[in-house]
Amino acid sequence: MGQTLTEKILEDHLVEGELETGEEIGIEIDQVLTQDTTGTMVWLQFEAMGLDEVQTEIAAQYCDHQTYQFDFKNTDDHRFLRSAAGTFGAHFSRPGNGICHNVHRENFAAPGKTLLGSDSHTPTPGGLGELAIGAGGIDITVAMGGAPYYVEMPEVVNVRLEGELPEWATAKDVILEMLRRLTVKGGVGKILEYTGPGVETLTAPERMTITNMGTELGATTSIFPTDHQTEDYLERLGRGDEYVELQPDDDAEYDDEIVVDLSDLEPLVAQPSMPDKVVPVSEVAGQDVEQVIVGSCTNGGYEDILPVAKMLEGREVAMETETIVAPGSKQASEMLARDGWVAEMMAAGVNFSEATCGACIGIGHVPASDSVSMRTFNRNFEGRSGIEDDNVFLCSPEVAAAASIAGEIVDPRDLEDELDDLEAPGVELPDEYDGSKTDLIAPDEAVDDELIKGPNIGDVPIRDQLGSDVSGEALLKMEDNITTDHIIPATQDILMYRSNVPKLSEFTLSRVDDTFAERALEADGGFLVAGENYGQGSSREHAALCPMYLGIEGVLAQSFARIHRANLFNFGIVPLTIDEDTYENIDQGDEIEVVDDVYEAVSSGQEEFTVRVNDDYEITATLDASQRERDILAAGGKLSWTRDQAEGSGAAPADD
Amino acid sequence: MGQTLTEKILEDHLVEGELETGEEIGIEIDQVLTQDTTGTMVWLQFEAMGLDEVQTEIAAQYCDHQTYQFDFKNTDDHRFLRSAAGTFGAHFSRPGNGICHNVHRENFAAPGKTLLGSDSHTPTPGGLGELAIGAGGIDITVAMGGAPYYVEMPEVVNVRLEGELPEWATAKDVILEMLRRLTVKGGVGKILEYTGPGVETLTAPERMTITNMGTELGATTSIFPTDHQTEDYLERLGRGDEYVELQPDDDAEYDDEIVVDLSDLEPLVAQPSMPDKVVPVSEVAGQDVEQVIVGSCTNGGYEDILPVAKMLEGREVAMETETIVAPGSKQASEMLARDGWVAEMMAAGVNFSEATCGACIGIGHVPASDSVSMRTFNRNFEGRSGIEDDNVFLCSPEVAAAASIAGEIVDPRDLEDELDDLEAPGVELPDEYDGSKTDLIAPDEAVDDELIKGPNIGDVPIRDQLGSDVSGEALLKMEDNITTDHIIPATQDILMYRSNVPKLSEFTLSRVDDTFAERALEADGGFLVAGENYGQGSSREHAALCPMYLGIEGVLAQSFARIHRANLFNFGIVPLTIDEDTYENIDQGDEIEVVDDVYEAVSSGQEEFTVRVNDDYEITATLDASQRERDILAAGGKLSWTRDQAEGSGAAPADD
Repeated sequence: MGQTLTEKILEDHLVEGELETGEEIGIEIDQVLTQDTTGTMVWLQFEAMGLDEVQTEIAAQYCDHQTYQFDFKNTDDHRFLRSAAGTFGAHFSRPGNGICHNVHRENFAAPGKTLLGSDSHTPTPGGLGELAIGAGGIDITVAMGGAPYYVEMPEVVNVRLEGELPEWATAKDVILEMLRRLTVKGGVGKILEYTGPGVETLTAPERMTITNMGTELGATTSIFPTDHQTEDYLERLGRGDEYVELQPDDDAEYDDEIVVDLSDLEPLVAQPSMPDKVVPVSEVAGQDVEQVIVGSCTNGGYEDILPVAKMLEGREVAMETETIVAPGSKQASEMLARDGWVAEMMAAGVNFSEATCGACIGIGHVPASDSVSMRTFNRNFEGRSGIEDDNVFLCSPEVAAAASIAGEIVDPRDLEDELDDLEAPGVELPDEYDGSKTDLIAPDEAVDDELIKGPNIGDVPIRDQLGSDVSGEALLKMEDNITTDHIIPATQDILMYRSNVPKLSEFTLSRVDDTFAERALEADGGFLVAGENYGQGSSREHAALCPMYLGIEGVLAQSFARIHRANLFNFGIVPLTIDEDTYENIDQGDEIEVVDDVYEAVSSGQEEFTVRVNDDYEITATLDASQRERDILAAGGKLSWTRDQAEGSGAAPADD
Repeated sequence: MGQTLTEKILEDHLVEGELETGEEIGIEIDQVLTQDTTGTMVWLQFEAMGLDEVQTEIAAQYCDHQTYQFDFKNTDDHRFLRSAAGTFGAHFSRPGNGICHNVHRENFAAPGKTLLGSDSHTPTPGGLGELAIGAGGIDITVAMGGAPYYVEMPEVVNVRLEGELPEWATAKDVILEMLRRLTVKGGVGKILEYTGPGVETLTAPERMTITNMGTELGATTSIFPTDHQTEDYLERLGRGDEYVELQPDDDAEYDDEIVVDLSDLEPLVAQPSMPDKVVPVSEVAGQDVEQVIVGSCTNGGYEDILPVAKMLEGREVAMETETIVAPGSKQASEMLARDGWVAEMMAAGVNFSEATCGACIGIGHVPASDSVSMRTFNRNFEGRSGIEDDNVFLCSPEVAAAASIAGEIVDPRDLEDELDDLEAPGVELPDEYDGSKTDLIAPDEAVDDELIKGPNIGDVPIRDQLGSDVSGEALLKMEDNITTDHIIPATQDILMYRSNVPKLSEFTLSRVDDTFAERALEADGGFLVAGENYGQGSSREHAALCPMYLGIEGVLAQSFARIHRANLFNFGIVPLTIDEDTYENIDQGDEIEVVDDVYEAVSSGQEEFTVRVNDDYEITATLDASQRERDILAAGGKLSWTRDQAEGSGAAPADD
């Protein structure tokens, strides 16, 4: 049986498991990337692992989210990240140098490699035939430590492209069409592999617009085969030698197939407030537009902004339509400036911004109230723009530019009919991507050899391996359905401490009991007790990391939410299941003692644990876990486990 | 006796009074400017005056402070300002088009004119021979309504410039030298008139760097005579026909004289944290610099950024020194982009920003903790950058660029010695200022003919003329030395409501009694009672406007702070002075009734008022005021007074 492209790359990187859908596999990671809102914790964890140097071929730290640096905490984070990259051997991209995905694709992305990134749009270089997956911070940390990345083998879906895009239809319309058909949940648990005769009609940057926004389908990743377009792009980047031809076998078998005829596509928009609320532009034409923003990792490349510049050349944006262009990379900005396009756009009335994620994550250029904003971004969730009840449409750069000119939503084909000298700009790649690389500091040029931590940057605690004895007070007894928002709230006043676990930990479970954090720290060890579905909600790791920091050693709950349960293993907290009677009998303040030798029992696969309460009676609690999870827990969490693996350690259990 | 240039322009505009130092004079205003943090209240007041159209030759509304638009309230403010400019006949400069002073000097500033602006750096076009003064919002409003501006005739000081600037010394060093000599209080109550043979060695943009930063001396304004340099600059702007030769008479008499020999100057810096802590750069050389920012109304012109671009061409900024360039106007940005300089700066590692006040007012690019920031700005007050304990140095663009290259503070003359091919860039004006004006919307191009108010933009109350009877409850009795910070706090969470008097009023005197605002609104009229020095502190008009909104009709105090007293007149609240015994006898909750016919008594010059307390006993209270103040108060405040004047109204007292 032939292989899909996905299977070929995975097989080439397979360290553990088999390529069967739903089975856990471990794969080797060649490249990692991280950005400024997730990167600080990644590096603090890397430091806490006690490792000296990044083990992946490429690790790159970008500063792209908080580049406006509203608070010294942002600027301190950037300085810390520079120092971490220098100290541990990663590339560092300075604030203003651009969005991680854009700078990564320009400099590092390569066919056949694996990339893990702590940003959800990491799949971008799938358009170059790289297998690129977004993941949580600790996964990046351990991958940088040299460990495999574990994931359940997704379904592989064949997205067969036929035909060729007509004028004014773009790569953005391809992915908007996918969203229209599949919805934002349509890609969950899947890798979308693009094939078919339509593929070769798309340049590499167009492919990357599609793979980038595959994230909005919920896909694990998206990937294109490589061909002359890929080679051509890499050559223009000056990296032609990194080209590798990668194609699925002719007889590859896919879990599913979707056919998209490119020639059927027309300019589309996603209406407020979901990326899958997709309709033809013509259906919503005529609405006044007060703001247009071109940029983001989806449509911020040189190739995305050039059509806008061409459309605006010699024209003026509508007086009531603020038009902001924020390129995805400084290389794109510099090249556009050198060729005169930046001056042309400014002359047309564009507010030309530094290269940043910026408005796409609600930082800057928040729309006015009760107004329409047209954006070339990838997400338009309600309120994401920074104002509730927003009206954000997602569209291609061409549709955005048309709205700027007209001051209202308009199908660019209609605008073309209306204006004498407007024509479809098409896709044009520069002969050479010759922007400077001043802002990308290679590991061997680094200026820092130690970490620089501002006052808001705390240490990350790392837990020692599990001891034989685990005991302590039941510090908090909670009801059913406690969410990660209860455990660590995500409001802005608390989020700003994401680099500062000790400070952030002060808010742990404060929505349940605002004395908890202080009591837990004083007790120096203890348990949480909860009902059903403990830890439901987001994947945030801080919901385990902060309790760990406060000294929590175990959680006794009737059941655990899936992701939070994994996080408890990852941060060395023993998650034990108890039945309803037991839950009822335990009171806050009770003394809890696990009778078994805990390290031994966890390591050896023991499922039932005997727990003594108040030195009075005994109950049974269950640990249901794979051997890999047990090893991680016994080691004290994923960081300790990775460190031990790297050191080849066979440490004996600790005494306590 | 000959006249100074100042006297000539003032005489030309004199409406009331005589040009005697310390005497109140009324002058006609030709031009006004306002920006986005003060403009909303200006226009709300203009609306409240019930006037149809701006009466000055030029009124210009700029959006420059909050251009990053972090909150929809900023974007709503900008939209409101556009609609106000369109509705009432002002020019509107879109966000991103640049700093008010830069755009104004490029487009409107002209010799011999008077300019009033609601921004402290309004004196900038003094460098073109315009008499330009910064003032509070209501002064702008009434000037736009056609009324004169009243000011005490300042002393006129002759600042005699001799010699010529040596290489690497700049206009910034001239004003830094002035600050070193005079301190930040040295210009208070003075107009600085530059004369002497050194004047003609300075181009108009250099002169405007000096007049701009005269604000930091506390001067009412600064002004240069006009000559071939002025004419040359105006011609390059395409406004040569606006040139007028203006010189003081040879035998003009000045109140004081200061001599500055330009040839003695060298590169200077203002050390943290005051603009007058000036020393030669060489004295502080060697300190690591983590951030350099070039821009602001002081040094954000094309002529300021070009030297930086020349110095950075073919070089790279130090890896540890983040370098941000934010031009003062989009015209400068566009011209620099068209000539290739933007690409050169980006290649050197510059983060090129949109045209904004931005970091100069602490919005964006806040320095990292415990780090040095070198800025070409005008102020370095502690914490202004957005972080307490900052280390902000003020310097010329050349000194800033040198720090970027070296990564540390360095005298550019030493850097020139060190580097083979670095030379002093000098001052170069473009042949033609040919940037586009797309973002400057003239009144006759306006898209709006009615006001657009987002939910945070409230109405401004306007008070009817004083009635015959003034009575009500003593709603709050306060101690001595109540400050304007007590009356309207200026913390960030409250400041964001500056466009929203009803919302802002909820915080009135909340630091004294948080039930006050609600009680005052319910009472629908009443008095404040205070001890000595009521209203000390800032000039903020909201400290009178909000009590007026809440219905306060009079304040009985032992004494008033000077500026707040003027604000009470301006907003139609009767400020009556009482003696200590009376103060002691009145209690909060007492019923207060002014026995006299208040309108009549105020208008006619009556000083002693009889006040009945609790219908039980009578006291005497004093109104000490000029006739102009009485007229304003009788009219219900400055807005009503101006409206009445414009309408030629001779309204009779109201009945209530």
